[in-house]
Amino acid sequence: MRVMLTVAYDGTNYCGWQIQPEADTIEKRLDDAIYELTGEKIHVIGTSRTDSGVHANGNVAVFDTNTRIPAEKLCLALNAKLPADIVIQESRQVEEDFHPRKHVSEKLYEYKILCRNRPLPLYRYDTYYTKYLPEIEKMREAAGLIVGEHDFKGFCSIKTQAETTVRTVYSIDIDAKELIEGGTLFSIKVRGNGFLYNMVRIIAGTLLEVGCGKRSLADVSDAIENVNRTSAGQTAPACGLTLQKITFEDNSFIK
Amino acid sequence: MRVMLTVAYDGTNYCGWQIQPEADTIEKRLDDAIYELTGEKIHVIGTSRTDSGVHANGNVAVFDTNTRIPAEKLCLALNAKLPADIVIQESRQVEEDFHPRKHVSEKLYEYKILCRNRPLPLYRYDTYYTKYLPEIEKMREAAGLIVGEHDFKGFCSIKTQAETTVRTVYSIDIDAKELIEGGTLFSIKVRGNGFLYNMVRIIAGTLLEVGCGKRSLADVSDAIENVNRTSAGQTAPACGLTLQKITFEDNSFIK
Repeated sequence: MRVMLTVAYDGTNYCGWQIQPEADTIEKRLDDAIYELTGEKIHVIGTSRTDSGVHANGNVAVFDTNTRIPAEKLCLALNAKLPADIVIQESRQVEEDFHPRKHVSEKLYEYKILCRNRPLPLYRYDTYYTKYLPEIEKMREAAGLIVGEHDFKGFCSIKTQAETTVRTVYSIDIDAKELIEGGTLFSIKVRGNGFLYNMVRIIAGTLLEVGCGKRSLADVSDAIENVNRTSAGQTAPACGLTLQKITFEDNSFIK
Repeated sequence: MRVMLTVAYDGTNYCGWQIQPEADTIEKRLDDAIYELTGEKIHVIGTSRTDSGVHANGNVAVFDTNTRIPAEKLCLALNAKLPADIVIQESRQVEEDFHPRKHVSEKLYEYKILCRNRPLPLYRYDTYYTKYLPEIEKMREAAGLIVGEHDFKGFCSIKTQAETTVRTVYSIDIDAKELIEGGTLFSIKVRGNGFLYNMVRIIAGTLLEVGCGKRSLADVSDAIENVNRTSAGQTAPACGLTLQKITFEDNSFIK
């Protein structure tokens, strides 16, 4: 049977999702846990191959297995073999030909930024810290230029191997919340049909630079219209990024 | 000169604030950092001696030093000697006779609870996880019984060494927020003039049990009126608790 796993992880101590020689990755840990449980040597197929240090609350992976354990029970059985920083949220049997990367309709990423005079240790794992307080209205104006279907070659790492660099960003929502302990916590939620290598981190870095007056709206337009990487901002650090949710076209693939 | 430090820490890896033989504590780390910087062997005086595993974004400590480093610069100089999970937020010179425990007017603690089918790794350090979803209105009713000046002997550990167990709880604010990644995050903010050993954790445990129907409002009244520890709830786990802020009567002690 083919099984779909919804996986949450704190990516701090991992070299990203994808298996690599000599590196500790989320995929390796899942493969190892499945081997320990079933004796089967397989590779799970991930939907989002998140980068080193990036987190997820809802990444999705599939794999094929001959185990007699019912699909819904694999969640608990595998969690018993996984470390505390990787927790499978759900396991479901799916159609044999279901491939998660081909059926994604929306991915939701969140980038968090703590703006404050000094960093707070409790925020250090999943939030980027900066001393500077960006102007939220400027960030929202810049976000408006990024939303839509565009060639995002100006917003991706030169290391990208994607066949096409056209993607659709459905929405970018930016909120700021005053903390009772002092300081402001920004949340940038980016929804889209797919993202290029480093794309969400470059969007976050660009919005932050616009909010702090280091970059103009004209730069953002140039990065979009002329696919100019140098007009976009720096790649914001991995620690602030979390893949919150993946939505599929329909759920008819679930058995 | 006497120096006041405002200190934030992730308490996960520490045996609480207070120095103890053979144990790693926040006080020990601060004493060690001051010794490394100034060569002076001193013990800082903490305002709240938080328990093992409890966090703080704004605990306050004072110490006396003969260093020539200006008080305001000690913050950065000491942070360079401290690990990433302890960050001094501010350092100020204060009156020689200023004793923080004698001048506190308000302490604000926050207890966080994640309610969800499965735990999320990113919340594991500073949030208590439970499968059960409490009823917020019931929790607020119970909180109403706890607010005020009372003998809180029913809400403290039998290990307490306090001379009097009368304290005033100024307010308890309970909020619940739906998470985009699924689940509900509860925040219980407790303000008071001081707290007994384990008192905030017992208040949080009691409110949670009332919200889940395991304990009644009559039990809470009994715990307050008849100082009956067995009528209050269990001590909620340390990981969910953060000391957010300490307020002093006035700021005239700052030089």
